[in-house]
Amino acid sequence: MPKLEFWFEFASTYSYVAAEEIEGKARSAGVELVWRPFLLGPIFAEQGWRDSPFNLYSAKGAYMWRDVERLCQRKGIAWRRPSVFPRNGLLAARIATALDRAEKLPDFVRSVYRANFSLDLDISEPSVLKEILCNLSLDEEAIFMRANDDSVKRLLRARTDEAKSRGVFGAPSFFAKEELFWGSDRLEQALEAPRD
Amino acid sequence: MPKLEFWFEFASTYSYVAAEEIEGKARSAGVELVWRPFLLGPIFAEQGWRDSPFNLYSAKGAYMWRDVERLCQRKGIAWRRPSVFPRNGLLAARIATALDRAEKLPDFVRSVYRANFSLDLDISEPSVLKEILCNLSLDEEAIFMRANDDSVKRLLRARTDEAKSRGVFGAPSFFAKEELFWGSDRLEQALEAPRD
Repeated sequence: MPKLEFWFEFASTYSYVAAEEIEGKARSAGVELVWRPFLLGPIFAEQGWRDSPFNLYSAKGAYMWRDVERLCQRKGIAWRRPSVFPRNGLLAARIATALDRAEKLPDFVRSVYRANFSLDLDISEPSVLKEILCNLSLDEEAIFMRANDDSVKRLLRARTDEAKSRGVFGAPSFFAKEELFWGSDRLEQALEAPRD
Repeated sequence: MPKLEFWFEFASTYSYVAAEEIEGKARSAGVELVWRPFLLGPIFAEQGWRDSPFNLYSAKGAYMWRDVERLCQRKGIAWRRPSVFPRNGLLAARIATALDRAEKLPDFVRSVYRANFSLDLDISEPSVLKEILCNLSLDEEAIFMRANDDSVKRLLRARTDEAKSRGVFGAPSFFAKEELFWGSDRLEQALEAPRD
């Protein structure tokens, strides 16, 4: 089965749109997904940005909020503009990294995105993430232990370095083998990309 | 007939993609086009950029070249990566402003884009633009006179100011009334936008 890597950052609005759509579309396309949480912060920092470009460039930011609202409406995705942006997704990304190939990883990812972009909850709060794990019948204490272990922290850092070295500069990003696609608008094209 | 404003910059690769597609799609959608050449330079300069962001941010730039190549291939649009980027589109924009609602404006616009992004010609060169006008059976001397007239220079500056004040931060941009859409990927959505 051909594979597609889905690289996402929990603070990213367009990653939310992609996360809501990707499983259904990958199934239709007969493509296996590899879920890759990573951190945009270190990548943005190297470009000299200490905040989201949507906050640094106000016209671009104003447009993004309207564009995502329209996109979600067209696609039937729940949406509420969060009262804080960007929210720190570090702990959620560590948990997703700890879950790795667990069957419930996609459900966890979607639940975190919905907490941030539909329920306006603070996804940097351990209690919010524990409740999500609990609702998925996952052992939240054991997973928190693993998420805070050095091996998981190192793995998430290594994945972020890997993303950067493969040319990732934003999220969501998709790889069909080494072919990079950026943005939720490129999901279909990424799923159709030749893999030979 | 509902209208769509098409704001484009001659140096912009994605504006080229939109320029190649927009007339056919607007006709199918029953939408009248308003062609609006403008300059991104002054808008980028206010964001602190003295060059194209695709040159300033190298990973983003490398991706753009690959993405546009793929897009053109999928859409059957001629494409050759220009040896100079961005090329100065000021004179071409003044000519397009001078042509305003001339029947041949769309042909002129497409010819300039093809010169830049398919033939790798220097569109800042008067001789290149004169040949384009000549090939369209337009009076190149009269049009150059008008393009260099203060009234046209002022009109182009006013249009660029108008774009900025309406929230434009990149190209191509589309307006369905006051609803802004950014990027060649949003052309379909812009053509479908409600106008009441």
